[in-house]
Amino acid sequence: MNARPDSREMFEARLRAIGAERYHDKHPFHRLLHSGGCTPDQVRAWVINRYYYQSRIPMKDAAFLSRVDDPELRRIWRSRIEDHDGREPGTGGIHRWLKLAEGVGLDPAYVASCRGVLPATRFAVDAYVRFVRDEPLLSAVAASLTELFAPKIHAERIAGLLAHYDFANEATISYFRHRLTEAPKDVAFGLAWVLDHAQTRADQDAAAAALTFKTDVLWAQLDALWSAYVEPARIPPGAWQPGEGLA
Amino acid sequence: MNARPDSREMFEARLRAIGAERYHDKHPFHRLLHSGGCTPDQVRAWVINRYYYQSRIPMKDAAFLSRVDDPELRRIWRSRIEDHDGREPGTGGIHRWLKLAEGVGLDPAYVASCRGVLPATRFAVDAYVRFVRDEPLLSAVAASLTELFAPKIHAERIAGLLAHYDFANEATISYFRHRLTEAPKDVAFGLAWVLDHAQTRADQDAAAAALTFKTDVLWAQLDALWSAYVEPARIPPGAWQPGEGLA
Repeated sequence: MNARPDSREMFEARLRAIGAERYHDKHPFHRLLHSGGCTPDQVRAWVINRYYYQSRIPMKDAAFLSRVDDPELRRIWRSRIEDHDGREPGTGGIHRWLKLAEGVGLDPAYVASCRGVLPATRFAVDAYVRFVRDEPLLSAVAASLTELFAPKIHAERIAGLLAHYDFANEATISYFRHRLTEAPKDVAFGLAWVLDHAQTRADQDAAAAALTFKTDVLWAQLDALWSAYVEPARIPPGAWQPGEGLA
Repeated sequence: MNARPDSREMFEARLRAIGAERYHDKHPFHRLLHSGGCTPDQVRAWVINRYYYQSRIPMKDAAFLSRVDDPELRRIWRSRIEDHDGREPGTGGIHRWLKLAEGVGLDPAYVASCRGVLPATRFAVDAYVRFVRDEPLLSAVAASLTELFAPKIHAERIAGLLAHYDFANEATISYFRHRLTEAPKDVAFGLAWVLDHAQTRADQDAAAAALTFKTDVLWAQLDALWSAYVEPARIPPGAWQPGEGLA
């Protein structure tokens, strides 16, 4: 048994390899979406379910803040909540996501109600919020490092949506444009923090397990979407049915 | 707005209607299983993933006990833990489930390790344990009332497994035989308790919502199983691959 920690470089490479193997850019739903293969209702189902994830991210970050006794760490981390919730009404990532919802023909109030969200989406996302609330801070920060892999998927998404879908324009895809700059800022801090604080081999293993858990949370959301809305589609009882929640 | 509570009879009918509409006996995976249409690997995937649910039920019941200040209610509810964990080594529902695992060619130690369980199974089952830990007692008891609908599915399963699968015999299906008598005893108590304690319309709505939530927990497990292991199968990263964990 080798209980010595990996070097900083090897540990970072280990974390990046988790994304290379398991990040949800490998899921066929994203290929379908980015290639223009989604029907309008499949795009709507994605917007409705992904909204639930967006809506819980600031709650996740608040759960994290509630456990941090260092004002400096809290101050830096707080910008994540501001990015999502905005500094004044009508700003922020969640508002921008609802602009996307409008763009695809959904009533933003319906989307914001979270009615119709797939139960499997709720179970996965709620598991993430609770993970950040309950697990050691190192694991909570490490779980956020899927943002290492996000700029690539956002760039592919912007290009794919603009190329293939009538609803896509700078107003409706504004959410993703902002994430292109927000995510790298957040993750540069998060990665350095994890590399600094994972001192032992056990710490490194826990951080890798947390990042793996987070890739599971993202992958499970796309599996649920595929199972419910892509052929052969089987919508679970109570979940969004095409035609509901239109503007 | 009619805020008066339903009569006891109408409230019970409302709860039973939730099962008639949403219980997982309606899911095509159960039709596939009970009709003999599952491959040996699909049966194994079901046994592995359902084990995770079994394994968390006594933890769920312990979370419930930990919140009950009435010794009488605790004493009655405690029998559920005894049914699953047994009164001595080599007895109880979890042991019987591992006999089924052996019968389908799996290493019981592999199954008991819960390695290979689908992330979506974990998210759904963990959501149930946390629901019972966090929500009002009335909701926690109401969520258990899916057992109202269990004897029918257990009877269908016993007949279907014995008719169609070589592994099925009285030793391997012993888990289901026991549930035929355990579940009605538990649910008779649970139903009476919910009918007695749901005094207001808001109580009744909360109980109905809790039972609906529980049907979502069960349904999501079968959706995940289908998505991963039934054509077109797509096994999520890290989950059980056919050939792993064999005896």
